Amino acid sequence: MPSLEVCFSPHLLALHTLSHKAVVAVDILRATSCMVTAIACGVEKILPLQDTEICKAMKAQGYLIAAERDGKQIEGFDLGNSPFSYMNLAGKKIAFTTTNGTQVIKLSENAEKIIIGAFLNLTAVADYLAKEQKDVLIACAGWKGQVNVEDTLFAGALVAKLVQKGFVIANDSALLAKSLYETHKNHLLDFVNLCSHVQRLKNLGIQKDIEFCLQKDVYAVVPVLEDGEIIRYEL
Amino acid sequence: MPSLEVCFSPHLLALHTLSHKAVVAVDILRATSCMVTAIACGVEKILPLQDTEICKAMKAQGYLIAAERDGKQIEGFDLGNSPFSYMNLAGKKIAFTTTNGTQVIKLSENAEKIIIGAFLNLTAVADYLAKEQKDVLIACAGWKGQVNVEDTLFAGALVAKLVQKGFVIANDSALLAKSLYETHKNHLLDFVNLCSHVQRLKNLGIQKDIEFCLQKDVYAVVPVLEDGEIIRYEL
Repeated sequence: MPSLEVCFSPHLLALHTLSHKAVVAVDILRATSCMVTAIACGVEKILPLQDTEICKAMKAQGYLIAAERDGKQIEGFDLGNSPFSYMNLAGKKIAFTTTNGTQVIKLSENAEKIIIGAFLNLTAVADYLAKEQKDVLIACAGWKGQVNVEDTLFAGALVAKLVQKGFVIANDSALLAKSLYETHKNHLLDFVNLCSHVQRLKNLGIQKDIEFCLQKDVYAVVPVLEDGEIIRYEL
Repeated sequence: MPSLEVCFSPHLLALHTLSHKAVVAVDILRATSCMVTAIACGVEKILPLQDTEICKAMKAQGYLIAAERDGKQIEGFDLGNSPFSYMNLAGKKIAFTTTNGTQVIKLSENAEKIIIGAFLNLTAVADYLAKEQKDVLIACAGWKGQVNVEDTLFAGALVAKLVQKGFVIANDSALLAKSLYETHKNHLLDFVNLCSHVQRLKNLGIQKDIEFCLQKDVYAVVPVLEDGEIIRYEL
C-alpha cells in the first residue's frame, strides 16, 4: 500500500524524497484555502510565485495580481489573501505570491504531482490520492518556517481519511498530526483560536476568514500544478 | 511571565533566538535519558561531542568513551546508548557522541543556559526552570532531523508543568506538544510503540530501555552544561 508522510515545515522538506510522491501543499490560513476557492469558483489558472516584483509584472500579461506578506495585501496589487475575494473571478488568471503557501509549492517542485489541499476540499483531495495510489507527502507551509496548528490539524484530517483507505503511516509527524486532529476534530475553531498565528491574524480582523477556512468539503475540486500553473483537475 | 517555546527538530532551531533563554535539550531515546541516569548515579561529568574520532581521542585523557550511531554502539568504544550502562560509573568522566542528542546540544550553544531533560528527571527540570524564571526553549533532537513522538511527548509534559507554574505558551509547537501529551499521558508506552523510530529500535532489542526511558521522575537531578561539559546542578 502507498505510504503517508507529513512534513510540518518547509525547513524540513529536504529530509524527504519527493520524486515519486504526490505532495499536498497546505497553507490553511489562507493561501491554499484561497486557491481552492478560486479554482472551485471558475478561475482558469493560478500562477504561484515567490517574488512580488515578478508577480506584479504578470499584470501586463493579463493576470490579476495577488500578493500577501505578513497577513496583509500588498499595496498596488489587485487581491490579497481572503478567500471571499476569490469567489467571483470566473475565467480569470491569477498570479499569486504569499508569505508561506507559494513557497512550499516552489520547494516541492521535484515531486511527481503537486496538489492543493485545504479543509474546503478535504474529501476531494483524499479521493484523488486514493485513485492515484502514489506515496503521499503532506507539506505544511507553517508560518515563516515554524510549525502551525491549523496546517497540522489539516494534515491530521487527511491522514485519518487516507488511513481508512489503506495508506500506511510512514513517519512520526503523520502519527502526531492524526492524533491531534482526532482530539480536536469536534472543536477545530476553538483550538485554532488559541494559536499564535491566529492571534496575529485576528489583529488584522479576519475572524470571518478563519471560520470559513476551517469548514470541510465546501468544494469538490482538486487544484493540481501542471507546467507551473494551478488548474482544476477533472475527476 | 517567562515565555515557553518548543522546537520539534534541530533543523528548526535557527528560527529561534537563544541568547537569553534556557534551552532544555531532549533526546528521550536515548541520549538525554542516559545523561540524566549517569549524572544521577554519580558520574562526575559528561563531555558531549559531535565527532566520533574526537570522542575516541578523549580516552587518552582519562575519559570513558561512549558512541552511538543509528541506535548501535560503535565498535571500539566503552559504552553505547543504553541507560542501564550508566548506573555504576560513579566518579568517572565520559566523552559521549550520539546520532541526534549531542548534536542538539551543540546547536544550542548560544543559549544562556543549557540543561538536559528526560522523563526521568521531568519534575526536577520543571522546578529548576521555575526557579530560574528565564524564557524557555525545549529543543527536541528528533531522529536525523525528523520530528519524533517521544521527544514531542516529553516537550508536552514539560509544557504542561510549566504552564501550571505561570509560563506563557509562545509558539504553536508548544501548544501542539501539550495537547499530545495530555491525550496520551496515561498510555505513553502504547503511543510511543506505534512510532517509526521505536520500530527501528525494537529491531535492536531495546524494549527494556524504552520502558525505562518513559518513566517519570526516577531521578531528582538537573544536568547542566558548564564550560562545555555536563555536570550536576546543585539545587
